[in-house]
Amino acid sequence: MKFQAFRPILLVNGILLMIVAAVMLLPAMVDYSVGNDDWRVFAVSALGTGFIGGSLYLTNRGYRDTLSLRQTFMFTVTSYVFTVVATAVPMHLSPMNMSFADAIFEASSGLTTTGSSVLTGLDSAPPGILLWRALLNAMGGIGIVVLALAILPMLRIGGMQLFRTESSDTTEKMLPRATQLAAVISAIFGALVLACAFCFYIAGMSGFDAICHAMATIATGGFSTHDASFGYYDSPTIEFICIVFMCAGSLPLILYFRIFRGDPGLILRDTQVRVFFIIVLCVTATLAIWLSLTKEMSLLTALRYSSFNVVSVISTTGFATADYGAWGNFSICVFFMLLPVGGCTGSTAGGIKIFRFQIFYETTRVQLRQLLQPNGVFVPRYNGKPITDSLAASVMSFFLLFALTFMVVALILSLYGLDFLTSMSSSAQALANVGPGLGQVVGPAGNFSSLPDGAKWVLSFAMILGRVELFTFLVLFTPAFWRD
Amino acid sequence: MKFQAFRPILLVNGILLMIVAAVMLLPAMVDYSVGNDDWRVFAVSALGTGFIGGSLYLTNRGYRDTLSLRQTFMFTVTSYVFTVVATAVPMHLSPMNMSFADAIFEASSGLTTTGSSVLTGLDSAPPGILLWRALLNAMGGIGIVVLALAILPMLRIGGMQLFRTESSDTTEKMLPRATQLAAVISAIFGALVLACAFCFYIAGMSGFDAICHAMATIATGGFSTHDASFGYYDSPTIEFICIVFMCAGSLPLILYFRIFRGDPGLILRDTQVRVFFIIVLCVTATLAIWLSLTKEMSLLTALRYSSFNVVSVISTTGFATADYGAWGNFSICVFFMLLPVGGCTGSTAGGIKIFRFQIFYETTRVQLRQLLQPNGVFVPRYNGKPITDSLAASVMSFFLLFALTFMVVALILSLYGLDFLTSMSSSAQALANVGPGLGQVVGPAGNFSSLPDGAKWVLSFAMILGRVELFTFLVLFTPAFWRD
Repeated sequence: MKFQAFRPILLVNGILLMIVAAVMLLPAMVDYSVGNDDWRVFAVSALGTGFIGGSLYLTNRGYRDTLSLRQTFMFTVTSYVFTVVATAVPMHLSPMNMSFADAIFEASSGLTTTGSSVLTGLDSAPPGILLWRALLNAMGGIGIVVLALAILPMLRIGGMQLFRTESSDTTEKMLPRATQLAAVISAIFGALVLACAFCFYIAGMSGFDAICHAMATIATGGFSTHDASFGYYDSPTIEFICIVFMCAGSLPLILYFRIFRGDPGLILRDTQVRVFFIIVLCVTATLAIWLSLTKEMSLLTALRYSSFNVVSVISTTGFATADYGAWGNFSICVFFMLLPVGGCTGSTAGGIKIFRFQIFYETTRVQLRQLLQPNGVFVPRYNGKPITDSLAASVMSFFLLFALTFMVVALILSLYGLDFLTSMSSSAQALANVGPGLGQVVGPAGNFSSLPDGAKWVLSFAMILGRVELFTFLVLFTPAFWRD
Repeated sequence: MKFQAFRPILLVNGILLMIVAAVMLLPAMVDYSVGNDDWRVFAVSALGTGFIGGSLYLTNRGYRDTLSLRQTFMFTVTSYVFTVVATAVPMHLSPMNMSFADAIFEASSGLTTTGSSVLTGLDSAPPGILLWRALLNAMGGIGIVVLALAILPMLRIGGMQLFRTESSDTTEKMLPRATQLAAVISAIFGALVLACAFCFYIAGMSGFDAICHAMATIATGGFSTHDASFGYYDSPTIEFICIVFMCAGSLPLILYFRIFRGDPGLILRDTQVRVFFIIVLCVTATLAIWLSLTKEMSLLTALRYSSFNVVSVISTTGFATADYGAWGNFSICVFFMLLPVGGCTGSTAGGIKIFRFQIFYETTRVQLRQLLQPNGVFVPRYNGKPITDSLAASVMSFFLLFALTFMVVALILSLYGLDFLTSMSSSAQALANVGPGLGQVVGPAGNFSSLPDGAKWVLSFAMILGRVELFTFLVLFTPAFWRD
């Protein structure tokens, strides 16, 4: 690729940075209003980011604003690099004493809606930084939904071609379409956040906590304003509200738009949504029964703990109300295996995503039939549409690439001396953008701050890799990508 | 299926049992010759097994000796059930004090050439039982190669259709072909065992040890006549010989036949063989460098330990010369990830098998190119043959089904209270027929005897499931299988 080819990419990234700069003014205003000096950090960062964004925009204006296929891949990956660095700056400069590696980790975690944190002492932190972390989750959440609706189907990433519509057929219309979608998705996202914050507030949270947690919940991000996460409130009502809205964030957001337009039954007719709830219910019930049988716990208490933490992990939110790693070997295994699952595609959730499991299941079921009747013709289907062999291969490649990347990341982490459970679980959670892993250090009761810097860089990278669905990134490493 | 349909299955199983009965006479003779009373156990077992086998043969003789597709699936699965139970009996009755669950575990482990053991005190055990365990490995090894050459390609299990030849096209010719192949494979296997035993003997093993270890080595089984496995000899020469012959057992045995017929270069032109050796070399080198850098170990000593144990695991043999689980977190991760890999198809090795990794790699490489040129036509190839989308889907389904089964088995094991590393690694090693897992209990320095009986049953089942390549077994659980 020649330099000219990068110009439209820089242009769009410039626009993104200007948006980030505008959002930075919010924590500045909040800190200013409570008289916290930290407002200067956000104001200066906003100025700097705005300046760089504006320069990128102005110097590259006039280059055509449509992106080719290769430019779209490039844009998707670089947009994370630009925004992560930009959003890390105010955290690095803030009085929270974060090293640059820490700030990059926290920013990656926020923007990918992972929710792993290296920060402690949240309960006494200035409101600006707490709001900023929630805003990272929110921007990341909206961003990923737009990506999943407007860009990934066009790039045909791991079976996402299934979600192509006629209007997404050409790259020409990609940017206008993405802009339109961003408006719609932001409106839906905002409405959900308001509803969630209202419920949290009614249930007893402070207004500020309610807003911050609502953003982190709908974004399935998981940043809390308290070190103890939702354990801080110890309120079944708040937990229940959170469960409802974590699920809401794990469903395809565009469905709400269609419901709003007059088809409320739609959401339950979508097979991906149905399977999501079936998995949540089965795992919650199994774990609750196991808990009540093996621990001194009533079935109701067991259900409370299992439902919140199961939904939190499968929706890739990552809030915690209990150290489920300490429940026993069975729960460690269950939660480890839940880590990569993820929510529905088109939602803010990460992970492998439910529709890929459905396609794998349908394909395998048909293959088993085919074994018995080698000459029979069986066509697997997803939501009524036939699954072609090529789509099935694409989806299954994604699974295997996920597994392979997971292993490589875990191996590198183990080189940093992390034990088996810590390496394996933090690799899986980072790629699936969950938040907590398992074990004493990275588990729901731990914190990532004690990891070596190298491991933090690896995990930051893994979070972004998982968020752009691997292929988007790996394609940049094929020789064909750079050939003219 | 009607009862009539089972008759040819019982017939062939009857023949298998008669062969097992004949083989039982060998340990009987050995025990008798050294004056050990244990010979009676083997003689009586041989009599009983021969009687049951003979009855099955005689009562079902006359029913057509060709098997339909469904009957072949049924036969493959039941043959393991019949032979495992039959070969477990003399161990249960022997003076080694094995419970029935223990005997079934040891028999499954032997016949699937896994090599996990619940026995201790091997060094002072009567020779009959030691020979019997080696013979289990040998019978299992020959059996699996015949299965992979004559039966699985016809059943189209997880991409095995790639290895179909014209003569394997109809089920009609399956049994005569299998019989012929069994003769050829037994001859090749026998020749390799003799060569291996000769080398072991020259290098200092006793004649008896040499024969037993040679059978376990070529079968990539892993049963030793000493509690300390190959650590007992502490001899670089013996270890080197073992490495060579473990590799020999991991290559497609039929290649030796072709080499013998005049094409010695063939073995290195086979891409599966090349990739196998590349993986072995890369992992051995990485681990040796890491060992010499982090431990007080010369590079040569590090190479000695890493080569033996890496080849032992990847060939799914399972001999051990060191407790690699105690080397550190990196080696635990490396060995865990090596567990499912396995050798070449058509060999005695278990695991996922190299050719499936090749097909996954080629498919993914082509998919990455396709992402950039959606309208381009790229055909992935294996050994020169095109990989169809349907073949790719079949292979990748196998991977995912393996992963899924692995998780279910690990979950069940964790319910028995096994810790994370033990559950995960023993599930993986059982499905891949490796032998040792990781951790204090099931690791290379441990022993499976202390596991609860339930876990032993689950693992016995997993070993057989892995050996028949999952699909063969799972197809029995589809409603279509039982429909007339």
